[in-house]
Amino acid sequence: MPEQHAARLRLKRGEERRLRSGHLWIYSNEVDIDKTPLKSLEPGSEVVVEDHRGKPLGRAYVNPQSLICARLISRNPEQALSSSLLKKRLEQAISFRDRLFPEQCYRAVFGEADSLPGLVIDRYRDVFVLQAGTAGMERVQEQVAHILQTQYDARAVIARNESSIRELEGLPQYTRALVGELPQEVSLTENGADYFAPLEAGQKTGWFYDHRAARRRLGPLVKDARVLDVFAYCGAWGVLAAREGARDVVCLDSSETALEYVHRNAQANNVADKVQTLHADAFAGMKELIGAGERFDVVIIDPPAFIKRRKDLKNGIAGYHAINELALRLVAPGGILVSASCSMHLPADQLLDVVRSSARHIDRFVQVFASEGQAEDHPVHPAIPETRYLKSWFVRVLMNG
Amino acid sequence: MPEQHAARLRLKRGEERRLRSGHLWIYSNEVDIDKTPLKSLEPGSEVVVEDHRGKPLGRAYVNPQSLICARLISRNPEQALSSSLLKKRLEQAISFRDRLFPEQCYRAVFGEADSLPGLVIDRYRDVFVLQAGTAGMERVQEQVAHILQTQYDARAVIARNESSIRELEGLPQYTRALVGELPQEVSLTENGADYFAPLEAGQKTGWFYDHRAARRRLGPLVKDARVLDVFAYCGAWGVLAAREGARDVVCLDSSETALEYVHRNAQANNVADKVQTLHADAFAGMKELIGAGERFDVVIIDPPAFIKRRKDLKNGIAGYHAINELALRLVAPGGILVSASCSMHLPADQLLDVVRSSARHIDRFVQVFASEGQAEDHPVHPAIPETRYLKSWFVRVLMNG
Repeated sequence: MPEQHAARLRLKRGEERRLRSGHLWIYSNEVDIDKTPLKSLEPGSEVVVEDHRGKPLGRAYVNPQSLICARLISRNPEQALSSSLLKKRLEQAISFRDRLFPEQCYRAVFGEADSLPGLVIDRYRDVFVLQAGTAGMERVQEQVAHILQTQYDARAVIARNESSIRELEGLPQYTRALVGELPQEVSLTENGADYFAPLEAGQKTGWFYDHRAARRRLGPLVKDARVLDVFAYCGAWGVLAAREGARDVVCLDSSETALEYVHRNAQANNVADKVQTLHADAFAGMKELIGAGERFDVVIIDPPAFIKRRKDLKNGIAGYHAINELALRLVAPGGILVSASCSMHLPADQLLDVVRSSARHIDRFVQVFASEGQAEDHPVHPAIPETRYLKSWFVRVLMNG
Repeated sequence: MPEQHAARLRLKRGEERRLRSGHLWIYSNEVDIDKTPLKSLEPGSEVVVEDHRGKPLGRAYVNPQSLICARLISRNPEQALSSSLLKKRLEQAISFRDRLFPEQCYRAVFGEADSLPGLVIDRYRDVFVLQAGTAGMERVQEQVAHILQTQYDARAVIARNESSIRELEGLPQYTRALVGELPQEVSLTENGADYFAPLEAGQKTGWFYDHRAARRRLGPLVKDARVLDVFAYCGAWGVLAAREGARDVVCLDSSETALEYVHRNAQANNVADKVQTLHADAFAGMKELIGAGERFDVVIIDPPAFIKRRKDLKNGIAGYHAINELALRLVAPGGILVSASCSMHLPADQLLDVVRSSARHIDRFVQVFASEGQAEDHPVHPAIPETRYLKSWFVRVLMNG
């Protein structure tokens, strides 16, 4: 395939600084549109990015419709997003996961942090579920699927192209099989436990591998414990807790489909006798448990993002306060709270402050004995704060004395 | 024992805010010395702390000589630091460690975060090494030793009372046995590995348990790897790496005594054939290795605090830059750097930025796949930032492309 001719994208003076720090994004207001009009570029096409003096900085794909109008794919201006580059980047990403998680259930590619901006791929052994978030990745997704099929023995590659970022890129929402057939559900192994999760009816790519590292910490904490798993979804935390020796586990979720999977996953791990489900809204369900005088040795709260946009910050933090205070009330003295947030806009320290002040408010004292971020298969790009979103705090809850 | 009469310590208006947030310290400039002169109080004696209107806030011990003139021991103004309170607090702290680390090698008490301000105790099975950092704790250390002897079968309790904080409290520097005899060394088990460490000639209480959780992450990363452990001390990281399947390990340290312990610890774990030592200053030793063209799959840098006081910040950061850049040069492409800092004044994010910019400087790209803080036996008090000091980043080092 002959090298694709690439247009140029000239930045305004000083606007190369972010790229030089390691970042991969260019915002539309940073482009010198007099010299290189954005409008004429086709969404997903490639450009050579230049500083204000015309010095090439690397190669990017563009989308004139999006505020993030270009994402760097290489620091080498000659390097197109070719099939061989895709192959190399996939190999770089997947070889690392294979070393850590030989059962081959993991997030195989995490976008920018794997030098594949806009592309996310989750792997369920021989089933791959990808999300192309950008026009640039939409353009090459068939090539990616082909590589997964030929190099990684993919039985199915699903494009789960439903996300809000696609709206910003002006892309349609759809789910379809690029290779093989669209399965109704996926099966996976995580931290030694076996799980099923719905694909079509489920959330995102079906499973949230990102809390794998945090869940790994449960083992030594739950022996003989009574455990409450709030926002349980398919029971990732709760079923693992039961497997790791919890006395009994309550999984609370508002989705009946999710709770059906909790039962199924409990059975798959031979802990059905220890795992109960509670079908309720998280807030209402926790209030009910408090009213009934129920207490737990370990409570896990793993809520959906309460802060989706920066403008939700104040309300979102109020939500985290409310849920953490309810959770703290449900922890028996000396017990443990695991408090998580996947809101990118809520820094880890701010979540800890929510836990601290919620505890003070009800006259508890918390000792922070561990924290976790995203699991190893969701690496952070150190120059791109947006790649770092998940945090969980492990605290021991004591009465003030 | 009749309740000890306690003097009062009146705060100025508004100065109760920090205590209300959960903090335990009172600074001397926050005291209303007209109403309650500090000077008249005996170092280590107890007071009832009051807000500016005389409302009691809790009980503290004092040291008029120190900038931190009082530390809260209870929110209950009647609650003296009696033998029964010490017993209760020790039980609260130790029971948690016993649950997580049944081999009974751990930091048993971590000061403020265990509601025992100024007191640190490390445990090596039946040997306890305590540090009383304050006059208040110096006063009760014999009681603590007695409890450790009678309740926890201590064969020896050593007061390792040598620290800069003691200077600020006007306390003498000494090491002596409170119970039993002063051993020359301690033995311990951590993450399944057996170690010896010098006590009299060694650093602090002999061992640094605080990196236990970070070291736990080494296992899956070092299979068949060539590993460099910089600032190796007694080989805590390096010997564990060898045990976990590293091909070979180089432990670099400037102390001959430390390196003798590396050899001994390698033998104790049957990995003497895999562990080499390099006796050199860390910077010089790393430059030598770079010059010789040596490369490693995993490099660990666990330096002493380069920033001991806030005024060392700039120079300290320059030091972290230098050491991280050297380390990054020694990592083979696709390999791993573990970059740690125990400087309380260097926040985790700032260390990450040091790693990021050092990598950019030599045209490497790093993926951040894990981070760790202090191990579970060094809990953080969420209202006292000073209790949070340790951080390590795990990054994969790639060539820019």
